Amino acid sequence: MKKQPVLAKLAVSRRLRSTPYTPRLEALGVSDYSIVNHTVLPKGFGRSTQEDYWHLREHVQLWDVSCQRQVEIKGPDAARLVQMMTPRDCREAQVGQCLYVPLIDDKAGLINDPVLLKLAEDHYWLSIADSDVLLWAKGLAIGLNLSVQIDEPDVSPLAVQGPKAEQLIARVFGDAVSEIRFFRFSELEFNGHPMIVARSGYSRQGGFEIYLNDSKLGLSLWDALWAAGEDLDVAPGSPNLIERVEGGLLSYGNEITRENNPLECALEQYCCFDSSLDYIGKSALHAIKNAGPVRQVRGVVFGGDPCPPCSSTWPLQVEEQYAGAVSTAIWSPRLNCNVALGMLEKAHWDIGQAITLHCGDDVLRDGRVVELPM
Amino acid sequence: MKKQPVLAKLAVSRRLRSTPYTPRLEALGVSDYSIVNHTVLPKGFGRSTQEDYWHLREHVQLWDVSCQRQVEIKGPDAARLVQMMTPRDCREAQVGQCLYVPLIDDKAGLINDPVLLKLAEDHYWLSIADSDVLLWAKGLAIGLNLSVQIDEPDVSPLAVQGPKAEQLIARVFGDAVSEIRFFRFSELEFNGHPMIVARSGYSRQGGFEIYLNDSKLGLSLWDALWAAGEDLDVAPGSPNLIERVEGGLLSYGNEITRENNPLECALEQYCCFDSSLDYIGKSALHAIKNAGPVRQVRGVVFGGDPCPPCSSTWPLQVEEQYAGAVSTAIWSPRLNCNVALGMLEKAHWDIGQAITLHCGDDVLRDGRVVELPM
Repeated sequence: MKKQPVLAKLAVSRRLRSTPYTPRLEALGVSDYSIVNHTVLPKGFGRSTQEDYWHLREHVQLWDVSCQRQVEIKGPDAARLVQMMTPRDCREAQVGQCLYVPLIDDKAGLINDPVLLKLAEDHYWLSIADSDVLLWAKGLAIGLNLSVQIDEPDVSPLAVQGPKAEQLIARVFGDAVSEIRFFRFSELEFNGHPMIVARSGYSRQGGFEIYLNDSKLGLSLWDALWAAGEDLDVAPGSPNLIERVEGGLLSYGNEITRENNPLECALEQYCCFDSSLDYIGKSALHAIKNAGPVRQVRGVVFGGDPCPPCSSTWPLQVEEQYAGAVSTAIWSPRLNCNVALGMLEKAHWDIGQAITLHCGDDVLRDGRVVELPM
Repeated sequence: MKKQPVLAKLAVSRRLRSTPYTPRLEALGVSDYSIVNHTVLPKGFGRSTQEDYWHLREHVQLWDVSCQRQVEIKGPDAARLVQMMTPRDCREAQVGQCLYVPLIDDKAGLINDPVLLKLAEDHYWLSIADSDVLLWAKGLAIGLNLSVQIDEPDVSPLAVQGPKAEQLIARVFGDAVSEIRFFRFSELEFNGHPMIVARSGYSRQGGFEIYLNDSKLGLSLWDALWAAGEDLDVAPGSPNLIERVEGGLLSYGNEITRENNPLECALEQYCCFDSSLDYIGKSALHAIKNAGPVRQVRGVVFGGDPCPPCSSTWPLQVEEQYAGAVSTAIWSPRLNCNVALGMLEKAHWDIGQAITLHCGDDVLRDGRVVELPM
């Protein structure tokens, strides 16, 4: 059986970038980091993932998600390039709107699954997951000789997540935040500096993302939210693995890779099959749609003791046949079982299907396929 | 003064890929990881960086550099695409040759600095530093409608570095390794499996890189080298920061970023200014060549106690004027001072120039500009 990797320390360098908020996270005793887009993502603060989970569901957390880098696309051909990069129909997108956009290559393999912010008719941000979308966009633009400027601006998102998020944000940005609809953004002022504030975030508990647009203001933004949140039990946090799996929130590099297409990842609602819309990978995606996907993301629950971290994938079996693989798994204290996200083969993807799996130890565990969110 | 980031633990997930050698590194007690190309780079094994340094200069080490992912470019337009991506003249490159190739964008900003392996006239690998060159190459190929296949093969390099490397490799791959010249490769057999072995590596101590081409053989390759090296004092290792800085080996993301051009990074010898050669960024690079670079990489030495890790950059001053910035620094036990790599402004880049700097603490340190390698 494969031994789980130790949680070794992360070596420090300029290449793995710290963020405008890093000094505050360090002062709060960050205990774990991940790396996303060459940038640190603080992940633990001395509390367990379970304690963080309950806190997130009841109070409000500040998440340093500076690693959600922005790929800025500006210029006369910006709208054209953005539409070429995604099967989602962006033709009717409005300024002030956030759109979850799967990005695909010529074989309909997923390159990334960012949130698109439309700042103006010729000005977009892609708030990216973990791959260098800037290089992809630049390569396409140069190859196609498009008139666009593509860059990574000095923008470091701070997520405010949890049921008390709106109350906290309103104390710092004013009551106008209540008018921001889900997946919309407004420009609000912080100490006289206009900043984009969106009702969005990588949890199912509600909240906002503040697109800090000047690194020098990072500490004062953090401090203002921290001070305003004292009586709301504000705490540092990060995307919570239990909450994410239960909520069916996929993660690029985990559930989604370049080997997967949007239909496998249950993202059909973000794909346009109208023949009048052109984008890279259109013919490949239409062909997959016609044939139907052969595997698809599902929830999986299984028993036994709390499972170890899933550091690669764990194969699933149905009567000794390969049935798919789990890519993320963790113990849920609310559902009182292990919860997982996996890619299930068509023959075995029905809700309720019984499966077995090994979690990198010698125990054979029984489980079943479940609907998302759990 | 900015506090140095703590060495927090690295959170485990599928997204941060382990390697075919990971179980052996864990068994050997890896204590630090870095992340390069979404893959772990084991960095410490309970010994200090200084102990690793002396060992590397005297014996032989196995480095798990699987994170040097290969971007494979194959097909009728492969040579054309490769040449478009670099200002280095590849027209005379031979099969069996490794070429260090700076990759630049339309503004001559550095995208990566991989080693190119020419496997056949229509078949190349780019052995990359830390950025998604695959997306850059794919974007260009799609935009230009080139006939190429671009993919990441199942190849996980294992570096064998140090003065006893040749002796060790010969015991496992046979005496033919002695015929491999510097920056050339041969296909040699391991247990009947042909594998590329190159005389190359990210140290100045000599050695080889084995391009393991089947993950399933990773543990047996490691074990064969380990067993054969027992009397050579073989040890696990990794690119050594002291050795790298003294040797003037630049690192993408540290000394080299997209904000830098090849002339700033002292890579002019890898740039062709022959007007008959076309590549992306040609006019920008020619303009920089005509005007001359305004800053350039240099060595820097400075005094005081051993410096802390350089997690961002440290500005250099000459008589209270900005003179450049250090991006990597560490104490050298051989030179008995701190050694660093930095980008020096033209007015202050002469060898011998006296500088001052702060290393994130309150001490003002005196230093000077030195030649590379030190």
